Amino acid sequence: MSAGTEWLVDAEGCSAELIRDSEVLRILCEEVITKLGLRVVGDPTWHRFPPPGGVTGMYLLSESHLTCHTFPETGLATFNLYCCRPRPPFDWEQRLRELLRSAKVVVRIVDRGTESSAYGLPETDDRSSLVSTNSELTSMREVSGP
Amino acid sequence: MSAGTEWLVDAEGCSAELIRDSEVLRILCEEVITKLGLRVVGDPTWHRFPPPGGVTGMYLLSESHLTCHTFPETGLATFNLYCCRPRPPFDWEQRLRELLRSAKVVVRIVDRGTESSAYGLPETDDRSSLVSTNSELTSMREVSGP
Repeated sequence: MSAGTEWLVDAEGCSAELIRDSEVLRILCEEVITKLGLRVVGDPTWHRFPPPGGVTGMYLLSESHLTCHTFPETGLATFNLYCCRPRPPFDWEQRLRELLRSAKVVVRIVDRGTESSAYGLPETDDRSSLVSTNSELTSMREVSGP
Repeated sequence: MSAGTEWLVDAEGCSAELIRDSEVLRILCEEVITKLGLRVVGDPTWHRFPPPGGVTGMYLLSESHLTCHTFPETGLATFNLYCCRPRPPFDWEQRLRELLRSAKVVVRIVDRGTESSAYGLPETDDRSSLVSTNSELTSMREVSGP
């Protein structure tokens, strides 16, 4: 049964200064929310950790959630956008390159729920067919099931 | 570069009554936090939506985040546990069957970051090798990359 779609976005080579800046990250997250017509419930939560100063942001959405974690010590920024109703894509790659100076952005899409019918994908165990533009290994393992 | 591990947990056939009960969900989330030695930052956020009464819970962790979404209308409950430091596994399947009366639980593990070396998995495009106990299709697509 489908329970929506999650985008897992991992950006490497980001500017350490920019990903320590919660205002930059807030602008980015709010752009995602506005462009995709998402609805925020309550106040988002932002936290800046002690040096090296990683930042976490969490938005509770009517559609599920948007989260952001940054690791200035390694130049990484990661985002989760989970939507339980269909939403158009956001151009993560372009915007992360522009706003955070990311060198490499990988966007993975996961259908949530215990079945995979959300996109009408064939019932196959050949995950290589699910890769569209990036041939790198995606480490994803199912560890329990019915 | 690795940025930790995320567990995507999808449970179907849950008791609608139990997954409307934020106290039950809170007990479950706090059990995960306690058993894995996770550290909560600030107050968790809980929200109950209007009927059919799905619940969302979000915990900001020193280790990243734990989220919970429930859909009583379809009996689904979904969890994300993202840890940027190694943590032992939690027995999601058993506890969700016990606490939420889930009929089916699928746990998927995703290495966060733009490379997949966290588990020393071979550089292969054959995702079928990543399935351990569940042969169902895992819908996961990479849509952008370097």
